[in-house]
Amino acid sequence: MTAQVASSSLTAAQQTRLAALKLAVLSTEQRNQALEAIAGALESARDEIIKANVTDCEAAVVDGIAKPLYKRLQLDEHKLRDAIKGVRDVGKLADPVGHIQIHRELDTGLILKRVTCPLGVLGIIFEARPEAAIQIVSLAIKSGNGVILKCGKEAVRSCEAIVKAIKQGLGSTAVNPDVVQLLTTREETLELLKLDKYVDLIIPRGSNSFVRFVQENTRIPVLGHADGICHLYIDAAADIEKGVTIAVDAKTHYPAACNAIETMLVHALVAPTFLPKVATVLENMGVELRGDNRTRQILPNIASPSDWQTEYSDLILAVKIVDCLEEAIEHINNFGSKHTDAIITEDSNAAATFLALVNSAGVYHNCSTRFADGFRYGFGAEVGISTQQIPPRGPVGLEGLITYKYQVTGNGHIAADYTGADAKPFTHRDFNNT
Amino acid sequence: MTAQVASSSLTAAQQTRLAALKLAVLSTEQRNQALEAIAGALESARDEIIKANVTDCEAAVVDGIAKPLYKRLQLDEHKLRDAIKGVRDVGKLADPVGHIQIHRELDTGLILKRVTCPLGVLGIIFEARPEAAIQIVSLAIKSGNGVILKCGKEAVRSCEAIVKAIKQGLGSTAVNPDVVQLLTTREETLELLKLDKYVDLIIPRGSNSFVRFVQENTRIPVLGHADGICHLYIDAAADIEKGVTIAVDAKTHYPAACNAIETMLVHALVAPTFLPKVATVLENMGVELRGDNRTRQILPNIASPSDWQTEYSDLILAVKIVDCLEEAIEHINNFGSKHTDAIITEDSNAAATFLALVNSAGVYHNCSTRFADGFRYGFGAEVGISTQQIPPRGPVGLEGLITYKYQVTGNGHIAADYTGADAKPFTHRDFNNT
Repeated sequence: MTAQVASSSLTAAQQTRLAALKLAVLSTEQRNQALEAIAGALESARDEIIKANVTDCEAAVVDGIAKPLYKRLQLDEHKLRDAIKGVRDVGKLADPVGHIQIHRELDTGLILKRVTCPLGVLGIIFEARPEAAIQIVSLAIKSGNGVILKCGKEAVRSCEAIVKAIKQGLGSTAVNPDVVQLLTTREETLELLKLDKYVDLIIPRGSNSFVRFVQENTRIPVLGHADGICHLYIDAAADIEKGVTIAVDAKTHYPAACNAIETMLVHALVAPTFLPKVATVLENMGVELRGDNRTRQILPNIASPSDWQTEYSDLILAVKIVDCLEEAIEHINNFGSKHTDAIITEDSNAAATFLALVNSAGVYHNCSTRFADGFRYGFGAEVGISTQQIPPRGPVGLEGLITYKYQVTGNGHIAADYTGADAKPFTHRDFNNT
Repeated sequence: MTAQVASSSLTAAQQTRLAALKLAVLSTEQRNQALEAIAGALESARDEIIKANVTDCEAAVVDGIAKPLYKRLQLDEHKLRDAIKGVRDVGKLADPVGHIQIHRELDTGLILKRVTCPLGVLGIIFEARPEAAIQIVSLAIKSGNGVILKCGKEAVRSCEAIVKAIKQGLGSTAVNPDVVQLLTTREETLELLKLDKYVDLIIPRGSNSFVRFVQENTRIPVLGHADGICHLYIDAAADIEKGVTIAVDAKTHYPAACNAIETMLVHALVAPTFLPKVATVLENMGVELRGDNRTRQILPNIASPSDWQTEYSDLILAVKIVDCLEEAIEHINNFGSKHTDAIITEDSNAAATFLALVNSAGVYHNCSTRFADGFRYGFGAEVGISTQQIPPRGPVGLEGLITYKYQVTGNGHIAADYTGADAKPFTHRDFNNT
C-alpha cells in the first residue's frame, strides 16, 4: 500500500518515525527541556510568525474567507503569548510515559511489567487555527511521540513560520527536530491516511464531514468524533428552575461546541409548565425552538424539526415530549451520537436509571452538558473527544497518546516447564506498583 | 449501510442489543448465577451435544476434512467437561464491570466518576472448535456483553446443540436468552461485519488470512492479530546454554502458536559457537533451519529463507547473522509483527536497550516468547492477542470486553459560571477510589 504513496509524505513519515524512536527513550527532563526550548524559540520568532500570519490573513481576505474562519486564522500577539504559555503548562503536566501499570511475579525470577510508552507517530490534520500547531507539538513531545502536522491551506505561511521556530528550538536539545514535520497540500493529506505502517494515530480537527471523511478513508486508528448530538431530558420529577438554567447554558453558552445540546426531551407531565417558561427565556436569547406535534400544541408558534439527528451548531433547539423515562432513553440511544446527555430530575432512581442505560461517553445528572471537556475534567490537556464505544472514550487527555508494552524478564525460563503432567505452577504475585 | 443488510443477521443483532442493554445493569451475583445455570444446562445436555458432534465429525470425514481440523472439531466427554469447568472458573473471576477508575470533585457538589461498563454486543467468528462457543459465551456474560457467535460450517450441529443448552440454562435466570445468538452461514458473517450500529467489537478466531479479511472488511473495531512473526535475538553477551534451551522451547513447544518464533537473529561474535550447537539440537527435534548467506557459511547444509516475513507455524526456523544489537532491533521493527520478541544476553544494558527500542506488545529478556498468553500473565482468561499499537495490546483478558463512561452529577451547575472574567475555579480534588 505504502509503495504507491508519493515521496513527500512517505519521506516525512519515515524521518519522523526514526526520530520518534529516539524521542521515546529520552528522560522526562529531556522532553521538558525541549518544551522550554520551543517556548523560547517561539518567543524569539514572534515578529516573524505574526508577519507570516498577516500575509496569510491578507491572502484569505482576497480569497473571500468567511468571517468565523478569518477569526480562527488570525494570530495576534495575545493569542501567540497564550499559546507559548500553553507549551510551558504542558511541561508541568505529569509524565504519562514509563508508568508501571502491572508489576507481577509469574514465577521465581520471571517478572512481568506492563509499562506505558509513546504510541510512535501522530498524524494531526487541522484547519485554520495556526496556534493549534503549537499546542499539538507540545502534547506530542511531552508524550514522547513524533508528529506529522497538516494545516489548512489558509494557514500555511503561519504554520511554516511556527514549525521553523519549533525546529530551531529543538536544534539545541536532545530531541531531533525531525520529530516534527509539516505537510501543506491536500494531496499529502490523502497520502498520510495511507501510511498505516508509519503513523499510529490520526487526530482530525475540523468539520463533521471532514472527520467522517478521515474515518472512512484510513486504516489508521482515528481519535475524534464526527457528531455531537447531545440531549437534555427534563424528567417528570425535574426542578423546573434547574431545567431552565441548564437548558440555557447547554444551548447558548457556546452553540458551536460539540457538547452543546441539539435536542431537549420533556416529560409530558411537566411540559405544560416547563415549556412556556423555558421558551420565553430561550427565545429572548435568540434561540429558535423546533418542536414535535405535542410540543407545538403548547408552543403553537414554532416549526417542526426536519429530523432528530441534525447537529445545528447554532441557536436552534429541537424539542420533543415523551411519556416516560424509558422513551427518553430509547430516543437518546437511537438518535444521539454517544457524546454527552443529561437528565434533570430530583428523583434519584430516575437519575440512576438514566446514567446506567444511556449509552454515551458522558451521562450527566442536574448539570450542563458543557462540562464535557478535558480541562474541566482536570486532565490538564485535551487531545480530542471520542464518541467510539471502545476506550479511550469521551474527552481524552495525554493518556490518548500513549500505549503500553509487556516486558518479561527471566533467567532461562521456558514455557514447557509450566505445561503437561509435571507442570510448575505460576505464582502470579503482584508487587506494589511504583 | 445497515439498511442493505439481509434480515437474519440484522434481526439477531437488534435482539442481542436490546437484551444486552438489560444484561449490562444486572448485578455481579445475577451474572454469576447465569454462568452457573449455563454450566448446569450444558451438563444436562451432554449426551445431546456429543451426539450432535459425532454427526458433525462424520459429515466432516465424508467431506475429506484435514486431520488437524478434525481434531479441533472433535468434542469428547473430556473436552466438554473441561469447557464446563471453564464456565465455572470464569464465574470466579473478579467482576470487570462497575469499577470506579476516576472519582473527582470538579467543584463543590459537582462530582465526576469514570465507571467501567460492558462494551455492548460482541461479534465472535470462530472456526472448527465447538467448545470455543462455551468459553466465549461465559466471558461475554461475565463482562455484561451480548454475543453473536458465528461458527465454522463443520461445527454447526455441535454449536446449535451448545447454544440451545445455553439458552435453556439462561431461561431460568435474570439474563434474557436473547443475549446469545448463533449465526451459521457465510453470508451472515459478511452481514455481521456491516452492522457497526449494533456490534461494538469483532473478535475473529481463525487463520491469518481470515483475520486479515475481517480487518479489511469492517468498520467495527477488531480485536485480534493476523500474524505472529516472533524473533529470538542471541546477543554477543548471550549465555549460550540459555539461548539453546529457549530457542528449542520457543520453536518446538507448540509451533502452530502465534507466540512461537519464526526467525532467530544471531550476533556474529557468537554465531560460530552458538549456531552448530543449536542446529544439532533443533535438527534432532525435526526443525528445518533456513539461513542467510553468512549463516550458511557456518551451517552449509541448510537452505535460504525466501523472506523474513513468513509465519511458518511449523517446525521451520529462519536464521540471520547480525553485526550488532541495533541491526537486530531494526530487523525486528521492520519485519516483525509487533507480537513478542526476545533477547538472550547477560549484558543488562543490551537488554534494556532491546526492551526499550523493540516496538512490540511483548519484549522479553532471557525467557521464551511462549509466555505471551493471558493465562500465563495471570489474567484468568484470554479474549485474544492484539498486535495493534493502541491499547488493548498483547494478550487481552476480560479488560478487552469493557469500556467506561463518565458520570457527572451536579445540583444545577452550569459551565458559564466557570468561564470569563469572574470564572469560578475548579477544585479537581480526587476522592480515594473505591
